[in-house]
Amino acid sequence: MTASPLQSLAQDISPAKPSTFPLNQWYVAALGWELKDRPVGRTLLNKSVVLFRTADGKVAALEDRCCHRALPLSDGTLETGGLRCGYHGLLFNGAGKCIEIPGQEKIPSKAKVATFHVIEKDQIVWIWFGSPEHPEPIDEPPAYDVHSSGDYLFDGDVYHYDAPYQLIHDNLMDLSHLGYVHLRTIGGNASVHMNANMTVESDDHSVRVVRHMPDSAPPPTYVAAYPFKGTVDRWQEIEFHISHLRIWTGAVNAGTEPLDNPQRGGFHMRGFHGVTPETETTSHYFWTIATNPESNHEEVKAKVVEQTMMTFDEDKVVIESQYKNMRRFGERQMIDIHVDVGANRARRIIERLCHSTR
Amino acid sequence: MTASPLQSLAQDISPAKPSTFPLNQWYVAALGWELKDRPVGRTLLNKSVVLFRTADGKVAALEDRCCHRALPLSDGTLETGGLRCGYHGLLFNGAGKCIEIPGQEKIPSKAKVATFHVIEKDQIVWIWFGSPEHPEPIDEPPAYDVHSSGDYLFDGDVYHYDAPYQLIHDNLMDLSHLGYVHLRTIGGNASVHMNANMTVESDDHSVRVVRHMPDSAPPPTYVAAYPFKGTVDRWQEIEFHISHLRIWTGAVNAGTEPLDNPQRGGFHMRGFHGVTPETETTSHYFWTIATNPESNHEEVKAKVVEQTMMTFDEDKVVIESQYKNMRRFGERQMIDIHVDVGANRARRIIERLCHSTR
Amino acid sequence: MTASPLQSLAQDISPAKPSTFPLNQWYVAALGWELKDRPVGRTLLNKSVVLFRTADGKVAALEDRCCHRALPLSDGTLETGGLRCGYHGLLFNGAGKCIEIPGQEKIPSKAKVATFHVIEKDQIVWIWFGSPEHPEPIDEPPAYDVHSSGDYLFDGDVYHYDAPYQLIHDNLMDLSHLGYVHLRTIGGNASVHMNANMTVESDDHSVRVVRHMPDSAPPPTYVAAYPFKGTVDRWQEIEFHISHLRIWTGAVNAGTEPLDNPQRGGFHMRGFHGVTPETETTSHYFWTIATNPESNHEEVKAKVVEQTMMTFDEDKVVIESQYKNMRRFGERQMIDIHVDVGANRARRIIERLCHSTR
Repeated sequence: MTASPLQSLAQDISPAKPSTFPLNQWYVAALGWELKDRPVGRTLLNKSVVLFRTADGKVAALEDRCCHRALPLSDGTLETGGLRCGYHGLLFNGAGKCIEIPGQEKIPSKAKVATFHVIEKDQIVWIWFGSPEHPEPIDEPPAYDVHSSGDYLFDGDVYHYDAPYQLIHDNLMDLSHLGYVHLRTIGGNASVHMNANMTVESDDHSVRVVRHMPDSAPPPTYVAAYPFKGTVDRWQEIEFHISHLRIWTGAVNAGTEPLDNPQRGGFHMRGFHGVTPETETTSHYFWTIATNPESNHEEVKAKVVEQTMMTFDEDKVVIESQYKNMRRFGERQMIDIHVDVGANRARRIIERLCHSTR
Repeated sequence: MTASPLQSLAQDISPAKPSTFPLNQWYVAALGWELKDRPVGRTLLNKSVVLFRTADGKVAALEDRCCHRALPLSDGTLETGGLRCGYHGLLFNGAGKCIEIPGQEKIPSKAKVATFHVIEKDQIVWIWFGSPEHPEPIDEPPAYDVHSSGDYLFDGDVYHYDAPYQLIHDNLMDLSHLGYVHLRTIGGNASVHMNANMTVESDDHSVRVVRHMPDSAPPPTYVAAYPFKGTVDRWQEIEFHISHLRIWTGAVNAGTEPLDNPQRGGFHMRGFHGVTPETETTSHYFWTIATNPESNHEEVKAKVVEQTMMTFDEDKVVIESQYKNMRRFGERQMIDIHVDVGANRARRIIERLCHSTR
Repeated sequence: MTASPLQSLAQDISPAKPSTFPLNQWYVAALGWELKDRPVGRTLLNKSVVLFRTADGKVAALEDRCCHRALPLSDGTLETGGLRCGYHGLLFNGAGKCIEIPGQEKIPSKAKVATFHVIEKDQIVWIWFGSPEHPEPIDEPPAYDVHSSGDYLFDGDVYHYDAPYQLIHDNLMDLSHLGYVHLRTIGGNASVHMNANMTVESDDHSVRVVRHMPDSAPPPTYVAAYPFKGTVDRWQEIEFHISHLRIWTGAVNAGTEPLDNPQRGGFHMRGFHGVTPETETTSHYFWTIATNPESNHEEVKAKVVEQTMMTFDEDKVVIESQYKNMRRFGERQMIDIHVDVGANRARRIIERLCHSTR
């Protein structure tokens, strides 16, 4: 078992850059239902990872490279024993150990691939890479009750972005763009959005932006999903965490309920937005949208998911065009306006963490 | 109003190279009829420009980047007041000044974008970038009477080239390639083209190539457009200017009129060819073709435009293949032949201007 | 005849790297039947070559660049006299000499393009580039009787690979992957492949791997092509040469004939596999497959060719994915398993030759 002369083929490859993301965080690696009968290959924070579900239903995450001839293990097939490489059939278990080399009795100890910490919780698969100081997780991945409480119907998807993850944060932290970008769905009157009263609170790891739009016209998606009687009192609550955002928006018939009561009724849309860097310049966006239909449950849910998808498609066009233009123009000053407060605080949290070892 | 922390995202961007084109020239930025109800984004001499028509019908040219979050303004929408950004709705007038920030009363003085000198004349939109010595135009953009005299019907289009602009000059300066590249349209017998008598005159800013092909068979496009009776006396007059070429070709029935009389009758095709560098390695080609139908005016014009388009499509294939091969082979000597005289003089004019401050 | 000012356009081009392939070898440049009424442009060992058949039926190979304005000559057209450039009509003969410049009487001595040594033998076109020490061929290109003996029907094709040539060698040298990659065609039971007895012999320029699979189930392609009566005795004989591999596989009804007799009957598939580097990271794969149908000759041949093509399509997917992953991970150790013996010997032959002048 010696190093293969084949290695010299890889000469022209640049090594992965040191990461510039906060490393000691759980990041979203997948939505639970993505992992069925096939492995999923995905680059996360510059690491190539293959994710798969083992026979006991647990999720495993290995380096996506067979130790024999470097084929991505995500090109392979799932078996009861583990993941079998699609080239020469080496079989790896969830711990990254090669447990079968077809036609060869002895399995050398070097025949293994690296593993990553991975935990599935509330149908979200979280991965921990960690810094050199913290290769082992220092906390638990966050819970997301909306997926497990039974109070909501939900669905979601995974989008790939040709843009750095922080541009997606910016977009989600400032919902004032709804009036320009999302007129056809969740937008509504632009000046109502831009002039909505806004409060911003933050601590070392999160930012919370709340906007209320009392007595406003319900936007198309709301009207399609819920039997509103006229104008509505509308709320937007945005919670930024380093690995994801939670956005709770909704409305009640105008004047019927206080908006700051978490038990408020009316129409709800609760979004989970896992934003995970793929590389410095590209990202994965894992989203789910949950709602509380009064009736016609499946149709209403399908409608809300469809409209949300349209909305996120619109955002993707804008954000990727923005990033392309940022690259075209190079480093240049940007001016801030009133709606940027929340996004800028989020940016400072990340900046601080990139320079600390926690 | 401080610099946004978002700027650090643009780190991996190389600044635009210093221009290697003659800068103190008016270049074609657009054909007038391109600018209707939408802004047009276009890179010209390495500058990203958005062109649009303001409410008074004038053409404006701004830097194609919102000063807030860098979205291309060409992704925005036209309003009476100006151009509104498609992300957060900042509104800019034709002078580049931000005149509205939705939801914010005070508009900071920094909220503006750079403008470029632009003049529309005879349905051609000209832009001036200028050198550091001449940021203001030092002359007027050229006139093009063919578009405004009423003697001709014309149409045109804008092509994008994956090739440096000078390769397009070469192609237009030497019409001997018609016999090999354009057999199906305006070509005709190759040896007639190659052996045509040719005169070349030039001064510091222009080159004029004239070729006469007496008593020759009219090519397919000519026959389709004009009731010739047999062989024809054919002329090609090519005028090179740094920013554009004017090519006047046509034919009369053989032996009926002197070819060197500008008032000659017969069938005319008058081409305008604005060649504007996009970058050092790519170009925009703005062309129009004008003709003088005897009858069936619109049909004949449409036919001439269609055949011209086919011709230019053929040229594009050749020139892009040529440039790809030049890149493949690297810097290598080329040999000249007799037909290269005009093109080489044009090249020397540009070379000289790139090394002067005028 | 001076150097054209147009040369400066090619500034941004990096010169071709020094070759890292064994140079003093005949490599496959084309399959004979590719060269009919059109020139074929192809990059081989980093050289851009145009191949064409002259009026006497011989194959010529020139540098694929017109000496006038650098258009690929492969964009041109074949005439009795030679190859005419598609731009200004310069005509080149098979010796690379320009023999006509339309409209110009004198042909300068510089008007010529470089040629390469090329020989067609048994319907395979071989090309010699040679090292500085051996610009002239030091031996004859190999014969391939399978194409000329009349005992076989065959066909083939040319594939382009986004992978270095040695990864294709690896794949062909180790047929154990058949059980994982090619189940639908020539595969069969994986463990039979992996456990087959294997002998490996080699000298300074070739490697020979032989595997026998007695009393095994015939795979789908075999069953479709030949009237086997039950299990079969199956052989795989792989001969590696630096420029190509010969793979003779087949089977007889179990227990009817010794497998090590070259005159054995049964069903035969004889593969020719010319693997020629295009660049350091891309390759051309010239393959033919020959078979010996008992009856329905053309249908059986067509079936065998179709199944072979499916098989090679599967290999291409695997190998290109492997190389993409090798680039992604950079230089990393690979472990070897029992089936790698033959491939590793081939790799060492090439490594040694790259460091010698022979």
